[in-house]
Amino acid sequence: MRGRVAVFGPGLIGGSVAMALRDLSTGRGVTLWGRDRAILDEALSLGLADRIETDPAAAVAEASLVVLCTPVGAMEPLAKAIAPSLGAECLVTDAGSVKHSVTERLAPVLGSRFVGAHPMAGSERSGLGAARADLFREAPCIVTPREDSDPEAVRRISEFWASLGCRISSMPPAEHDRLAARISHLPHALAFALVNLVLDTLPEGAQCLAGGSFRDATRVAASNPALWTGILAENRTEVAASLREMAKLLKSMASALGEEKTDSLLDFLTRAKEHRDSLASSANAPDA
Amino acid sequence: MRGRVAVFGPGLIGGSVAMALRDLSTGRGVTLWGRDRAILDEALSLGLADRIETDPAAAVAEASLVVLCTPVGAMEPLAKAIAPSLGAECLVTDAGSVKHSVTERLAPVLGSRFVGAHPMAGSERSGLGAARADLFREAPCIVTPREDSDPEAVRRISEFWASLGCRISSMPPAEHDRLAARISHLPHALAFALVNLVLDTLPEGAQCLAGGSFRDATRVAASNPALWTGILAENRTEVAASLREMAKLLKSMASALGEEKTDSLLDFLTRAKEHRDSLASSANAPDA
Repeated sequence: MRGRVAVFGPGLIGGSVAMALRDLSTGRGVTLWGRDRAILDEALSLGLADRIETDPAAAVAEASLVVLCTPVGAMEPLAKAIAPSLGAECLVTDAGSVKHSVTERLAPVLGSRFVGAHPMAGSERSGLGAARADLFREAPCIVTPREDSDPEAVRRISEFWASLGCRISSMPPAEHDRLAARISHLPHALAFALVNLVLDTLPEGAQCLAGGSFRDATRVAASNPALWTGILAENRTEVAASLREMAKLLKSMASALGEEKTDSLLDFLTRAKEHRDSLASSANAPDA
Repeated sequence: MRGRVAVFGPGLIGGSVAMALRDLSTGRGVTLWGRDRAILDEALSLGLADRIETDPAAAVAEASLVVLCTPVGAMEPLAKAIAPSLGAECLVTDAGSVKHSVTERLAPVLGSRFVGAHPMAGSERSGLGAARADLFREAPCIVTPREDSDPEAVRRISEFWASLGCRISSMPPAEHDRLAARISHLPHALAFALVNLVLDTLPEGAQCLAGGSFRDATRVAASNPALWTGILAENRTEVAASLREMAKLLKSMASALGEEKTDSLLDFLTRAKEHRDSLASSANAPDA
């Protein structure tokens, strides 16, 4: 794929996309769109873009690809703002963590030029300062075509994310959301809940007793609250279902403990170890 | 404190105690007790002990301190086996993750010479091969005297764990268990449950989509299942209570999502981030 890339949102994801494009030396021009001129100037000085814009329509001029890396709630208004200015061949993708609602809102505005994606890379940190050129290296990326998506557009969008280092898989947006709820949103929700449960109820000073298991389990609780409220709310049906599944499982563990069903507990923990060991032996992914 | 140290259990914890004693060059002899002669021979060749024993009573000969580092279920029979052979001044401590039940069983056998402890250091790995001399460096260690404990024994046991690098705090055994259930056992239980929930229900191949949040949240699910079944079962009342508290919290999150109470969700996540950030700025602990 040739031509200019317009990256929307100079945060962790958008900044890392621009940084990866810079380091790939593809010769493609990069336009970076954002609301905050100071951040755009910083990106320009870092060589992440050769053009910066605060006007969405101006930002897509000459672009053959638009990559939306803003919070998911900002994507529909941006899509409406850029749609009239997109070149005939220009494709649009996004990096949002939720795909069904985003696709339902963007496809009517952008048509078959839009193919959503979810590069499962990230960090509890956010903002341009946390961006890394290798953020996407070996990261899983789920591309989420609709039934009526143009196969050629899907191929080109997949190639783009693969060129940044992602391992590509593909599934419909709703299936992505069911999976992402359990493999990404639920672990985040558990981290938020565990931190609050423990640190709201422990006596003063007891937090210094937190060891590695607590620290690891709650690392992502330091993530941006507004961003994650948006993600959980956008995927509310699947996240709520996974939270209820988890609550049910925890209550059955509590019952097994109360009834001293040690054998069934041992089976449960043995299965968990087998699962986790098989995961450890598969390819490592960066933060997500 | 002077004199020989008898370490029971040549696993991760016992091996690390012996290794730390070796590297401290205190000049104290170390007797290592275990069931498996091959592992003891390996420990001997690593210089972790100058005596090895498979007979509990023989292992405490000349010892001024006994450190029980076996699974908690093995401690009472061992205590009974060594009690008649302990020197008059010999103290006994342990490294078990559960303190109330252990103390209730060991105190009648060992009397005031026993003062329990829980060095909150560990790893999802186990066995002598995972032992490290610096396992206890900066690790929190909770010493759990009873009301009738001898203050001098408590002081000497605390000094021993501090000499290995631990940061010492002190509380009654039952309070330890309430705390440990929430700060250590619950994160482990959540990791086991999350792994099983996700990997039992996902389509084949989907596990390669697991990113950093899932990997971190489930790291300790690779822990020894038998060891952890023992720990959870020993602390069953507090662990079951904490699992039910967590289940309730997850259901309230699911309800907040379903009712689109975005503001209360944002408050919840913001509080979690504040808690987690304050934890990150406190001293780092090693794995536990």
